[in-house]
Amino acid sequence: MNHKELISAISSKLSISKNEVEQMLDTTISICTDQLKEGITIGFQSFGNFEVRKKEERLSVHPATQIRTLIPPKLVVNFKQSNVLKDKLNEI
Amino acid sequence: MNHKELISAISSKLSISKNEVEQMLDTTISICTDQLKEGITIGFQSFGNFEVRKKEERLSVHPATQIRTLIPPKLVVNFKQSNVLKDKLNEI
Repeated sequence: MNHKELISAISSKLSISKNEVEQMLDTTISICTDQLKEGITIGFQSFGNFEVRKKEERLSVHPATQIRTLIPPKLVVNFKQSNVLKDKLNEI
Repeated sequence: MNHKELISAISSKLSISKNEVEQMLDTTISICTDQLKEGITIGFQSFGNFEVRKKEERLSVHPATQIRTLIPPKLVVNFKQSNVLKDKLNEI
């Protein structure tokens, strides 16, 4: 399910125009991105938490050529599902 | 930043009532949860993808008592950040 399909689904469920849904979804994503950029964890009730983690730099060795490359440190977003979501996924 | 703070932030940015924002956020989460339950991957433009992965069952051995416990298989939600988000996080 991509962005557009999600917008259609929300729009038809709430009887709100697709434009309004899109505007709100975009705002949500941009706020989340800004918060994550500042290293702030975001919690979505009964869904999960997003937090930024730093992956340390590491030395990668090419198996065939033995050439070593330094992979620089980078920030990645980590998602941890809530217990509510975990239970919903795993219930029969 | 928790659920309530996020709702306030969206509400003030778009000048929509908190109730409307909350209703839409809840709908978004419930649609996402339903999709993930059916194993469908969800893509958020310029943010990332959510997909369900199965963690296989495994045998855990307690280090002190040596008692073995079978951890049953479970489904977990995996988030993979998009390249856009990655670039935003890592730009200086």
